[in-house]
Amino acid sequence: MSESAQPLAGRSLLVVGAHGAFGSEVARAAARAGAQVVLLGRRVPKLGQVYDQLVADGSPEPAIYPLDLEGATPADYEQLADTLRAELGGLHGVLHAAADFKHLASIENSEPLDLVRAIHVNLTAPLMLSRALLPLLRESGSVERPSSLVFMLDDLDRVSRAYWGGYGIGKHGLEGAFRILAQELEGSTVRVNAVRPAPTRTNLRSRAYFGEDPGLLPPAAERAPAIVALFRTSAESPHAEVIAP
Amino acid sequence: MSESAQPLAGRSLLVVGAHGAFGSEVARAAARAGAQVVLLGRRVPKLGQVYDQLVADGSPEPAIYPLDLEGATPADYEQLADTLRAELGGLHGVLHAAADFKHLASIENSEPLDLVRAIHVNLTAPLMLSRALLPLLRESGSVERPSSLVFMLDDLDRVSRAYWGGYGIGKHGLEGAFRILAQELEGSTVRVNAVRPAPTRTNLRSRAYFGEDPGLLPPAAERAPAIVALFRTSAESPHAEVIAP
Repeated sequence: MSESAQPLAGRSLLVVGAHGAFGSEVARAAARAGAQVVLLGRRVPKLGQVYDQLVADGSPEPAIYPLDLEGATPADYEQLADTLRAELGGLHGVLHAAADFKHLASIENSEPLDLVRAIHVNLTAPLMLSRALLPLLRESGSVERPSSLVFMLDDLDRVSRAYWGGYGIGKHGLEGAFRILAQELEGSTVRVNAVRPAPTRTNLRSRAYFGEDPGLLPPAAERAPAIVALFRTSAESPHAEVIAP
Repeated sequence: MSESAQPLAGRSLLVVGAHGAFGSEVARAAARAGAQVVLLGRRVPKLGQVYDQLVADGSPEPAIYPLDLEGATPADYEQLADTLRAELGGLHGVLHAAADFKHLASIENSEPLDLVRAIHVNLTAPLMLSRALLPLLRESGSVERPSSLVFMLDDLDRVSRAYWGGYGIGKHGLEGAFRILAQELEGSTVRVNAVRPAPTRTNLRSRAYFGEDPGLLPPAAERAPAIVALFRTSAESPHAEVIAP
Protein backbone atom coordinates (compact mmCIF):
# COMPACT_ATOMS: atom_id res chain seq x y z
CA MET A 1 0.00 0.00 0.00
CA SER A 2 1.39 3.44 -0.83
CA GLU A 3 2.17 5.79 2.00
CA SER A 4 -0.58 8.16 0.95
CA ALA A 5 -3.07 5.37 1.59
CA GLN A 6 -1.71 5.11 5.13
CA PRO A 7 -2.39 8.61 6.45
CA LEU A 8 -2.55 7.32 10.05
CA ALA A 9 0.72 5.36 9.91
CA GLY A 10 2.66 5.96 13.12
CA ARG A 11 -0.40 7.27 14.92
CA SER A 12 -2.02 5.53 17.87
CA LEU A 13 -5.75 5.65 18.54
CA LEU A 14 -7.69 4.47 21.59
CA VAL A 15 -11.22 3.41 20.69
CA VAL A 16 -13.43 3.31 23.79
CA GLY A 17 -16.40 1.03 23.23
CA ALA A 18 -14.56 -0.78 20.46
CA HIS A 19 -17.06 -3.60 20.07
CA GLY A 20 -20.02 -1.32 19.41
CA ALA A 21 -21.24 -0.43 15.92
CA PHE A 22 -19.38 2.87 15.62
CA GLY A 23 -16.37 1.79 17.66
CA SER A 24 -15.67 -1.33 15.65
CA GLU A 25 -16.10 0.35 12.27
CA VAL A 26 -13.92 3.32 13.18
CA ALA A 27 -11.31 0.95 14.61
CA ARG A 28 -11.33 -0.98 11.35
CA ALA A 29 -11.16 2.08 9.11
CA ALA A 30 -8.44 3.72 11.23
CA ALA A 31 -6.35 0.55 11.24
CA ARG A 32 -6.74 0.28 7.47
CA ALA A 33 -5.36 3.81 7.34
CA GLY A 34 -2.32 2.59 9.24
CA ALA A 35 -3.18 3.51 12.83
CA GLN A 36 -2.05 1.48 15.82
CA VAL A 37 -5.46 0.91 17.40
CA VAL A 38 -6.17 0.04 21.02
CA LEU A 39 -9.54 -1.67 21.41
CA LEU A 40 -11.08 -0.85 24.79
CA GLY A 41 -14.34 -2.40 25.96
CA ARG A 42 -15.91 -4.63 28.54
CA ARG A 43 -16.75 -7.70 26.47
CA VAL A 44 -13.54 -9.54 25.80
CA PRO A 45 -14.96 -12.09 23.31
CA LYS A 46 -16.42 -9.26 21.25
CA LEU A 47 -13.15 -7.34 21.39
CA GLY A 48 -11.53 -10.52 20.10
CA GLN A 49 -13.89 -10.53 17.12
CA VAL A 50 -12.95 -6.95 16.26
CA TYR A 51 -9.29 -7.86 16.68
CA ASP A 52 -9.70 -10.80 14.29
CA GLN A 53 -11.41 -8.56 11.75
CA LEU A 54 -8.55 -6.05 11.79
CA VAL A 55 -6.00 -8.82 11.40
CA ALA A 56 -8.01 -10.34 8.54
CA ASP A 57 -8.00 -6.91 6.89
CA GLY A 58 -4.20 -7.02 6.91
CA SER A 59 -4.13 -3.94 9.15
CA PRO A 60 -1.56 -3.34 11.89
CA GLU A 61 -2.22 -5.72 14.76
CA PRO A 62 -4.35 -3.90 17.35
CA ALA A 63 -4.05 -4.08 21.12
CA ILE A 64 -6.90 -5.12 23.39
CA TYR A 65 -7.57 -3.34 26.68
CA PRO A 66 -10.48 -4.88 28.61
CA LEU A 67 -12.14 -2.35 30.93
CA ASP A 68 -15.69 -2.07 32.19
CA LEU A 69 -16.51 1.64 32.36
CA GLU A 70 -19.28 0.91 34.84
CA GLY A 71 -16.84 -0.07 37.55
CA ALA A 72 -13.66 1.71 36.47
CA THR A 73 -12.13 4.04 39.04
CA PRO A 74 -9.79 7.03 38.70
CA ALA A 75 -6.92 4.62 39.50
CA ASP A 76 -7.94 2.43 36.54
CA TYR A 77 -7.78 5.42 34.21
CA GLU A 78 -4.35 6.39 35.55
CA GLN A 79 -3.21 2.83 34.95
CA LEU A 80 -4.55 2.99 31.40
CA ALA A 81 -2.55 6.17 30.80
CA ASP A 82 0.59 4.59 32.26
CA THR A 83 0.17 1.46 30.15
CA LEU A 84 -0.39 3.39 26.92
CA ARG A 85 2.63 5.56 27.64
CA ALA A 86 4.81 2.52 28.38
CA GLU A 87 3.58 0.31 25.54
CA LEU A 88 2.95 2.81 22.75
CA GLY A 89 5.17 5.70 23.79
CA GLY A 90 2.34 8.14 23.18
CA LEU A 91 -1.29 8.54 22.22
CA HIS A 92 -2.59 10.57 19.28
CA GLY A 93 -6.31 10.04 19.49
CA VAL A 94 -9.25 8.92 21.60
CA LEU A 95 -12.70 8.11 20.29
CA HIS A 96 -15.45 7.85 22.87
CA ALA A 97 -17.87 5.38 21.31
CA ALA A 98 -19.09 3.53 24.40
CA ALA A 99 -22.78 3.92 25.16
CA ASP A 100 -25.19 2.53 27.71
CA PHE A 101 -28.83 2.33 26.69
CA LYS A 102 -30.96 -0.53 27.98
CA HIS A 103 -34.39 0.37 26.62
CA LEU A 104 -36.88 3.23 26.64
CA ALA A 105 -38.42 3.59 30.12
CA SER A 106 -39.87 6.31 32.29
CA ILE A 107 -37.65 7.63 35.03
CA GLU A 108 -40.29 6.65 37.58
CA ASN A 109 -40.31 3.02 36.42
CA SER A 110 -36.58 2.69 35.88
CA GLU A 111 -34.44 0.81 38.34
CA PRO A 112 -32.36 3.41 40.19
CA LEU A 113 -29.16 1.57 39.39
CA ASP A 114 -29.99 1.55 35.66
CA LEU A 115 -30.26 5.35 35.76
CA VAL A 116 -27.05 5.68 37.73
CA ARG A 117 -25.17 3.32 35.43
CA ALA A 118 -26.35 5.13 32.29
CA ILE A 119 -25.21 8.50 33.64
CA HIS A 120 -21.92 6.96 34.67
CA VAL A 121 -21.10 5.17 31.42
CA ASN A 122 -22.39 7.87 29.06
CA LEU A 123 -21.04 10.86 30.96
CA THR A 124 -18.84 10.41 34.02
CA ALA A 125 -16.63 7.64 32.61
CA PRO A 126 -15.71 9.42 29.32
CA LEU A 127 -15.02 12.58 31.33
CA MET A 128 -12.73 10.79 33.79
CA LEU A 129 -10.99 8.80 31.08
CA SER A 130 -10.37 11.96 29.04
CA ARG A 131 -9.04 13.78 32.06
CA ALA A 132 -6.56 11.00 32.83
CA LEU A 133 -5.32 10.82 29.22
CA LEU A 134 -5.00 14.55 28.57
CA PRO A 135 -1.35 14.84 29.66
CA LEU A 136 -0.41 12.00 27.30
CA LEU A 137 -2.47 13.48 24.45
CA ARG A 138 -0.84 16.88 25.01
CA GLU A 139 2.67 15.43 24.96
CA SER A 140 1.97 13.31 21.87
CA GLY A 141 0.54 16.15 19.84
CA SER A 142 2.30 19.02 18.16
CA VAL A 143 1.15 22.27 16.59
CA GLU A 144 1.59 20.75 13.11
CA ARG A 145 0.00 17.49 14.06
CA PRO A 146 -2.21 17.82 17.13
CA SER A 147 -3.71 14.92 19.01
CA SER A 148 -7.46 14.42 18.65
CA LEU A 149 -10.13 13.79 21.26
CA VAL A 150 -13.54 12.93 19.83
CA PHE A 151 -16.87 12.53 21.63
CA MET A 152 -20.05 11.03 20.26
CA LEU A 153 -23.09 13.15 21.00
CA ASP A 154 -26.75 12.71 20.12
CA ASP A 155 -29.65 14.91 19.03
CA LEU A 156 -30.48 16.66 22.32
CA ASP A 157 -34.05 17.46 21.32
CA ARG A 158 -34.70 13.83 20.50
CA VAL A 159 -33.15 12.43 23.67
CA SER A 160 -34.95 15.05 25.79
CA ARG A 161 -38.20 13.30 25.03
CA ALA A 162 -40.03 11.04 27.43
CA TYR A 163 -38.46 7.65 28.23
CA TRP A 164 -34.87 8.41 27.17
CA GLY A 165 -33.78 8.14 30.79
CA GLY A 166 -30.16 8.02 31.85
CA TYR A 167 -28.91 7.82 28.26
CA GLY A 168 -30.60 11.09 27.32
CA ILE A 169 -29.55 12.76 30.56
CA GLY A 170 -25.98 11.53 30.15
CA LYS A 171 -25.79 12.85 26.58
CA HIS A 172 -26.92 16.27 27.82
CA GLY A 173 -24.11 16.21 30.33
CA LEU A 174 -21.61 15.02 27.74
CA GLU A 175 -22.50 17.96 25.51
CA GLY A 176 -21.47 20.21 28.40
CA ALA A 177 -18.28 18.24 29.03
CA PHE A 178 -17.35 18.49 25.36
CA ARG A 179 -17.94 22.23 25.24
CA ILE A 180 -15.98 22.90 28.43
CA LEU A 181 -13.04 20.67 27.43
CA ALA A 182 -12.90 22.22 23.96
CA GLN A 183 -12.57 25.67 25.50
CA GLU A 184 -9.98 24.56 28.02
CA LEU A 185 -7.85 23.02 25.24
CA GLU A 186 -8.17 25.90 22.80
CA GLY A 187 -4.71 26.64 21.37
CA SER A 188 -3.19 23.49 22.85
CA THR A 189 -1.74 20.47 21.03
CA VAL A 190 -5.06 18.63 21.47
CA ARG A 191 -8.08 19.14 19.22
CA VAL A 192 -11.47 18.38 20.73
CA ASN A 193 -14.35 17.66 18.39
CA ALA A 194 -17.59 15.70 18.44
CA VAL A 195 -19.74 13.61 16.18
CA ARG A 196 -23.54 13.79 16.13
CA PRO A 197 -24.35 11.02 13.66
CA ALA A 198 -27.50 10.93 11.59
CA PRO A 199 -29.72 7.86 12.20
CA THR A 200 -27.58 4.77 11.72
CA ARG A 201 -28.16 1.02 11.80
CA THR A 202 -27.03 0.19 15.34
CA ASN A 203 -28.30 -2.04 18.13
CA LEU A 204 -28.84 1.00 20.30
CA ARG A 205 -31.04 2.63 17.67
CA SER A 206 -33.10 -0.52 17.15
CA ARG A 207 -33.81 -0.75 20.89
CA ALA A 208 -35.30 2.75 20.84
CA TYR A 209 -36.96 2.74 17.40
CA PHE A 210 -38.42 -0.73 17.52
CA GLY A 211 -40.99 0.06 14.82
CA GLU A 212 -38.32 1.09 12.32
CA ASP A 213 -36.79 -1.22 9.70
CA PRO A 214 -33.05 -1.09 10.50
CA GLY A 215 -32.33 -2.26 6.96
CA LEU A 216 -33.41 1.16 5.69
CA LEU A 217 -30.68 2.95 7.67
CA PRO A 218 -27.05 3.24 6.57
CA PRO A 219 -24.64 1.05 8.55
CA ALA A 220 -22.02 2.54 10.86
CA ALA A 221 -19.36 1.68 8.28
CA GLU A 222 -20.70 4.53 6.13
CA ARG A 223 -20.15 7.01 8.97
CA ALA A 224 -16.65 5.77 9.80
CA PRO A 225 -14.61 7.70 7.18
CA ALA A 226 -15.86 11.09 8.40
CA ILE A 227 -15.04 10.13 11.98
CA VAL A 228 -11.60 8.77 11.07
CA ALA A 229 -10.87 12.05 9.30
CA LEU A 230 -10.96 13.77 12.70
CA PHE A 231 -7.81 11.81 13.59
CA ARG A 232 -5.90 12.88 10.44
CA THR A 233 -4.91 16.13 12.04
CA SER A 234 -2.93 19.07 10.80
CA ALA A 235 -2.42 22.64 11.93
CA GLU A 236 -5.67 23.45 10.11
CA SER A 237 -7.79 20.75 11.73
CA PRO A 238 -11.09 21.83 13.26
CA HIS A 239 -11.50 22.42 16.97
CA ALA A 240 -14.67 22.51 19.07
CA GLU A 241 -16.70 21.47 16.06
CA VAL A 242 -19.56 19.00 15.87
CA ILE A 243 -19.70 17.04 12.65
CA ALA A 244 -22.89 15.28 11.58
CA PRO A 245 -22.03 12.47 9.16
CA MET B 1 -53.24 36.61 59.32
CA SER B 2 -56.13 36.30 56.91
CA GLU B 3 -56.58 33.05 55.01
CA SER B 4 -55.77 34.76 51.72
CA ALA B 5 -52.34 35.58 53.11
CA GLN B 6 -51.79 31.85 53.69
CA PRO B 7 -52.10 30.46 50.17
CA LEU B 8 -49.91 27.46 51.06
CA ALA B 9 -51.77 26.51 54.25
CA GLY B 10 -52.21 22.75 54.37
CA ARG B 11 -49.48 22.21 51.77
CA SER B 12 -46.20 20.47 52.46
CA LEU B 13 -42.97 21.39 50.69
CA LEU B 14 -39.62 19.62 50.74
CA VAL B 15 -36.73 22.04 50.24
CA VAL B 16 -33.58 20.18 49.18
CA GLY B 17 -30.51 22.22 49.98
CA ALA B 18 -32.42 24.23 52.56
CA HIS B 19 -29.42 25.99 54.03
CA GLY B 20 -28.30 27.49 50.73
CA ALA B 21 -29.17 31.00 49.62
CA PHE B 22 -32.17 30.06 47.48
CA GLY B 23 -33.25 27.11 49.64
CA SER B 24 -33.37 29.08 52.86
CA GLU B 25 -35.19 32.07 51.36
CA VAL B 26 -37.79 29.94 49.59
CA ALA B 27 -38.29 27.90 52.77
CA ARG B 28 -38.86 31.09 54.67
CA ALA B 29 -41.24 32.61 52.14
CA ALA B 30 -43.17 29.36 51.71
CA ALA B 31 -43.53 28.93 55.46
CA ARG B 32 -44.77 32.51 55.76
CA ALA B 33 -47.39 31.58 53.16
CA GLY B 34 -48.49 28.77 55.48
CA ALA B 35 -46.62 25.75 54.07
CA GLN B 36 -45.39 22.90 56.21
CA VAL B 37 -41.75 22.97 55.16
CA VAL B 38 -39.25 20.12 55.43
CA LEU B 39 -35.67 21.41 55.49
CA LEU B 40 -33.32 18.88 53.88
CA GLY B 41 -29.57 19.40 53.81
CA ARG B 42 -26.27 18.04 54.97
CA ARG B 43 -25.24 20.70 57.49
CA VAL B 44 -27.32 20.21 60.59
CA PRO B 45 -26.23 23.40 62.42
CA LYS B 46 -27.11 25.47 59.36
CA LEU B 47 -30.45 23.71 59.03
CA GLY B 48 -31.00 24.66 62.67
CA GLN B 49 -30.41 28.32 61.84
CA VAL B 50 -32.99 28.20 59.07
CA TYR B 51 -35.37 26.42 61.45
CA ASP B 52 -34.88 29.17 64.05
CA GLN B 53 -35.54 31.84 61.44
CA LEU B 54 -38.83 30.26 60.40
CA VAL B 55 -39.90 29.95 64.04
CA ALA B 56 -38.88 33.57 64.68
CA ASP B 57 -41.05 34.58 61.72
CA GLY B 58 -44.03 33.00 63.45
CA SER B 59 -44.39 30.52 60.58
CA PRO B 60 -45.51 26.89 60.98
CA GLU B 61 -42.76 24.90 62.69
CA PRO B 62 -40.67 23.22 59.99
CA ALA B 63 -39.19 19.74 60.06
CA ILE B 64 -35.50 19.01 59.63
CA TYR B 65 -34.27 16.07 57.54
CA PRO B 66 -30.47 15.74 57.55
CA LEU B 67 -29.21 14.02 54.41
CA ASP B 68 -25.92 14.30 52.55
CA LEU B 69 -26.71 13.96 48.85
CA GLU B 70 -23.13 12.98 48.15
CA GLY B 71 -23.50 9.67 49.95
CA ALA B 72 -27.26 9.08 49.79
CA THR B 73 -28.33 5.80 48.20
CA PRO B 74 -31.59 4.75 46.52
CA ALA B 75 -32.56 3.18 49.86
CA ASP B 76 -32.11 6.54 51.58
CA TYR B 77 -34.49 8.17 49.09
CA GLU B 78 -37.06 5.42 49.63
CA GLN B 79 -36.77 5.97 53.36
CA LEU B 80 -37.28 9.70 52.84
CA ALA B 81 -40.45 8.98 50.87
CA ASP B 82 -41.69 6.58 53.56
CA THR B 83 -40.97 9.08 56.33
CA LEU B 84 -42.72 11.96 54.55
CA ARG B 85 -45.74 9.76 53.86
CA ALA B 86 -45.90 8.61 57.49
CA GLU B 87 -45.23 11.97 59.13
CA LEU B 88 -46.97 14.40 56.78
CA GLY B 89 -49.48 12.15 55.06
CA GLY B 90 -48.45 13.52 51.68
CA LEU B 91 -46.15 15.84 49.82
CA HIS B 92 -47.23 18.73 47.60
CA GLY B 93 -43.94 20.14 46.45
CA VAL B 94 -40.20 19.62 46.08
CA LEU B 95 -37.66 22.36 45.39
CA HIS B 96 -34.23 21.21 44.28
CA ALA B 97 -31.95 23.96 45.55
CA ALA B 98 -28.87 21.95 46.50
CA ALA B 99 -25.73 22.72 44.50
CA ASP B 100 -22.13 21.63 44.56
CA PHE B 101 -19.57 24.08 43.24
CA LYS B 102 -16.13 24.22 44.82
CA HIS B 103 -14.34 26.71 42.58
CA LEU B 104 -13.49 27.32 38.93
CA ALA B 105 -10.91 24.77 37.75
CA SER B 106 -9.93 23.04 34.54
CA ILE B 107 -11.08 19.46 34.14
CA GLU B 108 -7.45 18.40 33.75
CA ASN B 109 -6.44 19.95 37.06
CA SER B 110 -9.52 18.95 39.00
CA GLU B 111 -9.40 16.12 41.48
CA PRO B 112 -11.34 13.22 39.93
CA LEU B 113 -13.50 12.89 43.02
CA ASP B 114 -14.44 16.59 42.90
CA LEU B 115 -15.75 16.09 39.37
CA VAL B 116 -17.62 12.94 40.33
CA ARG B 117 -19.14 14.56 43.41
CA ALA B 118 -20.30 17.62 41.45
CA ILE B 119 -22.03 15.46 38.83
CA HIS B 120 -23.58 13.39 41.58
CA VAL B 121 -24.89 16.24 43.75
CA ASN B 122 -26.01 18.51 40.89
CA LEU B 123 -27.51 15.82 38.67
CA THR B 124 -27.74 12.23 39.84
CA ALA B 125 -28.99 12.97 43.36
CA PRO B 126 -31.88 15.28 42.36
CA LEU B 127 -32.88 12.76 39.70
CA MET B 128 -32.90 9.84 42.14
CA LEU B 129 -34.63 11.84 44.85
CA SER B 130 -37.33 12.99 42.40
CA ARG B 131 -37.83 9.46 41.16
CA ALA B 132 -38.35 8.14 44.69
CA LEU B 133 -40.82 10.89 45.61
CA LEU B 134 -42.89 10.84 42.41
CA PRO B 135 -45.45 8.29 43.65
CA LEU B 136 -46.07 10.43 46.76
CA LEU B 137 -46.27 13.64 44.72
CA ARG B 138 -48.74 11.98 42.34
CA GLU B 139 -50.98 10.77 45.16
CA SER B 140 -50.88 14.13 46.95
CA GLY B 141 -51.77 16.15 43.87
CA SER B 142 -55.10 16.54 42.15
CA VAL B 143 -56.20 17.97 38.83
CA GLU B 144 -57.44 21.11 40.60
CA ARG B 145 -54.39 21.38 42.79
CA PRO B 146 -51.43 19.51 41.36
CA SER B 147 -48.22 18.83 43.21
CA SER B 148 -45.18 20.78 42.07
CA LEU B 149 -41.64 19.63 41.33
CA VAL B 150 -39.16 22.45 40.72
CA PHE B 151 -35.55 22.26 39.52
CA MET B 152 -32.98 25.00 39.58
CA LEU B 153 -31.09 25.31 36.31
CA ASP B 154 -28.36 27.66 35.17
CA ASP B 155 -27.42 29.53 32.00
CA LEU B 156 -26.05 26.69 29.87
CA ASP B 157 -23.95 28.94 27.66
CA ARG B 158 -22.29 30.46 30.69
CA VAL B 159 -21.58 27.15 32.45
CA SER B 160 -20.29 25.62 29.18
CA ARG B 161 -17.29 27.89 29.38
CA ALA B 162 -13.86 26.80 30.51
CA TYR B 163 -13.38 25.93 34.18
CA TRP B 164 -17.03 25.28 35.11
CA GLY B 165 -16.22 21.62 35.62
CA GLY B 166 -18.62 19.17 37.23
CA TYR B 167 -21.08 21.92 38.14
CA GLY B 168 -21.49 23.00 34.52
CA ILE B 169 -21.62 19.42 33.29
CA GLY B 170 -24.15 18.48 35.97
CA LYS B 171 -26.39 21.44 35.06
CA HIS B 172 -26.37 20.31 31.43
CA GLY B 173 -27.51 16.90 32.55
CA LEU B 174 -30.12 18.37 34.87
CA GLU B 175 -31.60 20.33 31.96
CA GLY B 176 -32.10 16.98 30.22
CA ALA B 177 -33.58 15.37 33.33
CA PHE B 178 -36.02 18.27 33.72
CA ARG B 179 -37.15 18.09 30.10
CA ILE B 180 -37.60 14.31 30.17
CA LEU B 181 -39.46 14.32 33.49
CA ALA B 182 -41.72 17.16 32.37
CA GLN B 183 -42.75 15.16 29.32
CA GLU B 184 -43.28 11.98 31.30
CA LEU B 185 -45.53 13.81 33.78
CA GLU B 186 -47.55 15.74 31.18
CA GLY B 187 -51.24 15.48 32.09
CA SER B 188 -50.51 13.97 35.51
CA THR B 189 -51.21 15.43 38.94
CA VAL B 190 -47.61 16.66 39.14
CA ARG B 191 -46.37 19.87 37.52
CA VAL B 192 -42.69 20.01 36.65
CA ASN B 193 -41.08 23.41 36.19
CA ALA B 194 -37.68 24.97 36.54
CA VAL B 195 -36.06 28.21 37.63
CA ARG B 196 -33.13 29.79 35.84
CA PRO B 197 -32.39 32.72 38.12
CA ALA B 198 -30.72 35.91 36.98
CA PRO B 199 -27.42 36.69 38.74
CA THR B 200 -28.07 36.68 42.48
CA ARG B 201 -26.02 37.36 45.59
CA THR B 202 -25.05 33.83 46.63
CA ASN B 203 -21.90 32.16 47.92
CA LEU B 204 -21.75 30.01 44.79
CA ARG B 205 -21.81 33.06 42.55
CA SER B 206 -19.08 34.80 44.53
CA ARG B 207 -16.81 31.77 44.20
CA ALA B 208 -17.08 31.94 40.39
CA TYR B 209 -17.23 35.73 39.90
CA PHE B 210 -14.59 36.71 42.39
CA GLY B 211 -14.04 40.08 40.71
CA GLU B 212 -17.66 41.10 41.10
CA ASP B 213 -19.07 43.13 43.99
CA PRO B 214 -21.76 40.86 45.46
CA GLY B 215 -23.40 43.89 47.01
CA LEU B 216 -24.51 45.01 43.57
CA LEU B 217 -26.57 41.85 43.02
CA PRO B 218 -30.06 41.31 44.39
CA PRO B 219 -30.24 38.83 47.27
CA ALA B 220 -31.97 35.47 46.92
CA ALA B 221 -34.86 36.81 48.99
CA GLU B 222 -35.89 38.89 45.97
CA ARG B 223 -36.11 35.77 43.80
CA ALA B 224 -38.06 33.75 46.39
CA PRO B 225 -41.63 35.02 45.70
CA ALA B 226 -41.49 33.94 42.04
CA ILE B 227 -40.22 30.52 43.05
CA VAL B 228 -42.80 30.11 45.81
CA ALA B 229 -45.51 30.94 43.27
CA LEU B 230 -44.68 27.67 41.48
CA PHE B 231 -45.99 25.84 44.57
CA ARG B 232 -49.32 27.75 44.61
CA THR B 233 -50.77 25.43 42.03
CA SER B 234 -54.12 25.34 40.30
CA ALA B 235 -55.50 23.58 37.24
CA GLU B 236 -54.02 26.45 35.20
CA SER B 237 -50.51 26.25 36.63
CA PRO B 238 -47.64 26.11 34.15
CA HIS B 239 -45.95 22.86 33.23
CA ALA B 240 -42.55 22.25 31.66
CA GLU B 241 -41.77 25.95 31.89
CA VAL B 242 -38.56 27.64 32.90
CA ILE B 243 -39.02 30.88 34.80
CA ALA B 244 -36.22 33.41 35.05
CA PRO B 245 -36.78 35.62 38.07
